[in-house]
Amino acid sequence: MRVLLHGCNGRMGQVLTRIISQLEDMNVVAGVDREPNKYNNNYPVYDNLTKVQEEVDVLIDFSNHTALDSVLEFGLKRNVALVICTTGFTPEEKTKMREASKNIPVLNSANMSIGINLLNKILGQVAPVLYGDFDIEIIEKHHNQKLDSPSGTALMLADAINASLDNSLEYVYGRHSKTEKRQQNELGIHAIRGGAIVGEHSVIFAGAGEVIEINHSALSRDVFAYGAIRAAKFLSGKEAGFYTMSDVIG
Amino acid sequence: MRVLLHGCNGRMGQVLTRIISQLEDMNVVAGVDREPNKYNNNYPVYDNLTKVQEEVDVLIDFSNHTALDSVLEFGLKRNVALVICTTGFTPEEKTKMREASKNIPVLNSANMSIGINLLNKILGQVAPVLYGDFDIEIIEKHHNQKLDSPSGTALMLADAINASLDNSLEYVYGRHSKTEKRQQNELGIHAIRGGAIVGEHSVIFAGAGEVIEINHSALSRDVFAYGAIRAAKFLSGKEAGFYTMSDVIG
Amino acid sequence: MRVLLHGCNGRMGQVLTRIISQLEDMNVVAGVDREPNKYNNNYPVYDNLTKVQEEVDVLIDFSNHTALDSVLEFGLKRNVALVICTTGFTPEEKTKMREASKNIPVLNSANMSIGINLLNKILGQVAPVLYGDFDIEIIEKHHNQKLDSPSGTALMLADAINASLDNSLEYVYGRHSKTEKRQQNELGIHAIRGGAIVGEHSVIFAGAGEVIEINHSALSRDVFAYGAIRAAKFLSGKEAGFYTMSDVIG
Amino acid sequence: MRVLLHGCNGRMGQVLTRIISQLEDMNVVAGVDREPNKYNNNYPVYDNLTKVQEEVDVLIDFSNHTALDSVLEFGLKRNVALVICTTGFTPEEKTKMREASKNIPVLNSANMSIGINLLNKILGQVAPVLYGDFDIEIIEKHHNQKLDSPSGTALMLADAINASLDNSLEYVYGRHSKTEKRQQNELGIHAIRGGAIVGEHSVIFAGAGEVIEINHSALSRDVFAYGAIRAAKFLSGKEAGFYTMSDVIG
Repeated sequence: MRVLLHGCNGRMGQVLTRIISQLEDMNVVAGVDREPNKYNNNYPVYDNLTKVQEEVDVLIDFSNHTALDSVLEFGLKRNVALVICTTGFTPEEKTKMREASKNIPVLNSANMSIGINLLNKILGQVAPVLYGDFDIEIIEKHHNQKLDSPSGTALMLADAINASLDNSLEYVYGRHSKTEKRQQNELGIHAIRGGAIVGEHSVIFAGAGEVIEINHSALSRDVFAYGAIRAAKFLSGKEAGFYTMSDVIG
Repeated sequence: MRVLLHGCNGRMGQVLTRIISQLEDMNVVAGVDREPNKYNNNYPVYDNLTKVQEEVDVLIDFSNHTALDSVLEFGLKRNVALVICTTGFTPEEKTKMREASKNIPVLNSANMSIGINLLNKILGQVAPVLYGDFDIEIIEKHHNQKLDSPSGTALMLADAINASLDNSLEYVYGRHSKTEKRQQNELGIHAIRGGAIVGEHSVIFAGAGEVIEINHSALSRDVFAYGAIRAAKFLSGKEAGFYTMSDVIG
Repeated sequence: MRVLLHGCNGRMGQVLTRIISQLEDMNVVAGVDREPNKYNNNYPVYDNLTKVQEEVDVLIDFSNHTALDSVLEFGLKRNVALVICTTGFTPEEKTKMREASKNIPVLNSANMSIGINLLNKILGQVAPVLYGDFDIEIIEKHHNQKLDSPSGTALMLADAINASLDNSLEYVYGRHSKTEKRQQNELGIHAIRGGAIVGEHSVIFAGAGEVIEINHSALSRDVFAYGAIRAAKFLSGKEAGFYTMSDVIG
Repeated sequence: MRVLLHGCNGRMGQVLTRIISQLEDMNVVAGVDREPNKYNNNYPVYDNLTKVQEEVDVLIDFSNHTALDSVLEFGLKRNVALVICTTGFTPEEKTKMREASKNIPVLNSANMSIGINLLNKILGQVAPVLYGDFDIEIIEKHHNQKLDSPSGTALMLADAINASLDNSLEYVYGRHSKTEKRQQNELGIHAIRGGAIVGEHSVIFAGAGEVIEINHSALSRDVFAYGAIRAAKFLSGKEAGFYTMSDVIG
């Protein structure tokens, strides 16, 4: 598979460059970046999508949501599948993506990790089976430079659980000096911060006789690159349409 | 729901007695045990099923597989649903259960835990999505008096994973002084033994950028009682047929 | 070793009865309880310490702090070592214990668990080595009927860490919607509640390149009985003096 | 503190370059590497130690044990403290290090991680307190490209435990189809392999009423750089002598 890397000299672009170079069934045929000469890549790098002449099967975008117009234009003109890994899209931009997906395959997801998307799916299945007999709590751990808490991913998992239970849960963020029992409809969410922890999420279902824990641990930022690669392979040969990572994991 | 407890003075029978006494929608109306006077239960205890005159909705059996004939006879004669929690059945006995289930609802499972059955189901879904990009390993922990290793439950989980992958995995039970890389089709199974650990099972999917862990921890033998109670509620009002815990968790 | 069990028909007294009956080097020669006929124990049970005529090496007390006077009187009169496992003592009662310990060995601790006391000791050593380069967080998990949060044990561990750092830490009990980085002197304490979890404590030291976790998990109430037995063995042959579990673990 | 980085263009040399550049109390004043022009470092790089003219407080060596002679010569001639992070030394080389340490401070350790050295020390204290009542098991997890199993670090931790128990333990590497109970003097060691796991070690003490777990998780290779930096700070101003990481953690 011939890949065009949009944002190839950014942090994630370089991770993808390294990982794809080790694959046999995929290679980067060209890159595009605002700073085309920042690194010595083993593929040609242009400062603009319009300059790309190479034959391409899929464009992987790790640039910025403001570049969406040029990405969609390239995909439509050259009939190339688009894996859009940037976030922060406005409603208008999202509409444009959907519009373009009528003619070419377009994939976009808030979180490109295979594992997190899989957890999301499992939790929606498991929670309705266990709720009532089991109490649900989420623990997330991140590095000490993270500004927000709890993490967006923890909230995404909580929302997936809550949606499967008719949104009957109440999120509880800290227990301190309480002198009352836990209520069944509480969903405790706990944000641990420390050192350089990349990102861990643990969902606990605690019952009267047993405890089930579903854990996800990111080893490095590579996790998003691997998700993008899997999405690119998934998109290859697909019909026009709008896809998410949820489709990739079946 | 009116329960008849078969094997009420055995270890699990007493656990069920204690737990059901705290429930509002279920009560034990009678018990049967070889040693009917062993404990002071708050329900009549007979030494034989034929002596039970009470109206009963479901029979929960934690006695012994050799008592199967009398259990099936009682169920058929009195039109009572059967939750059979004993194990070790011969093929002939299994056939008899299936036969009886043509006329009454019968439930039997190798493991009555809701959590383990849920894991089994999840693993069959998850493994095919992750295999190829993720390595799979199982760790189980049990008390130091356990004779067999790995545990039967660990092997059950391994088989569920393997079945979902066309039985292409090779089980590996210990790595020692090897000087070779892990093969993709290995499924490492590791048996930890120590102290009074009730029973823990952990299935690890380790990828290039992320690790997913699905853990189950039994808190006490109560876990099987809670599973039996849930099975009894599930069976209430069901049509005749043969069911397993897999049906209970939907 | 010949044990006198004070409070032998209470919950912990019965746990001790069961465990000691399996030991070869220790046996219960008599018990005392307000309800002497509640159970059929395989040793004589009196309703008052003054009635005990048996030869005794150590008295293990799991009754109530209000019975302290009679316990100390028995110990002093019969020259018997005292393992006092009750809690809730007033300052006056504590003074009485110290006074008695001038003539006989007396042991009392807020928490009879070997493991928790060992953690307490380790943490006081480890925290000063790691603090500055590592962030410290505590997670505790307990059943859903627990009224207080965080647990007394979690606060005891936090205090041990804090004391070793000149009490420079600030306890933080929940992070929610914050948009600021973690401060170095924070000590996050997180209370998870669910199901029938007996009690778990985890202390996390998270650094820039590595994470150290020290975990304690209670399997059952037996943990306090085992601690009491170990304390009794430790006290055997010791000189008069006041001891705690900290002395037992050396 | 003024650092001379020996092996500055190797993998660990570059990690150190990045981390030290963010510190206020330490800076790299020069580097030495066989390939001096491989990277654009913000300090001068020479191809030989004899060419270094800069004033230096400490030399950190991440090159190769075969360069030991030149490192010791530089240290002795310029009176510079040496943090030697390479491994694989012959007995003769080790003798040379000890000899040089009579005149300058020299530090060398098999494992530069603060955490692993701390674990080693704790385990030697904890094992004698718990052994007899607790069973000991070690689980280690590493990436699927690792050739040896169990890991050298797991064996180092096992040896520290065993040494504290008069070497009375027997290492057990896999349990499979056994039909016998665990022996008290077994030390189970389990090697999990999968994905890109950097390195995790878990030591479990499982008792009749409680379980204690001491876990170490490496987040990245940065862990060894942070250990080297801490060692350099420790060595600053120390008298001549031979030191290890065990001294650094007090």
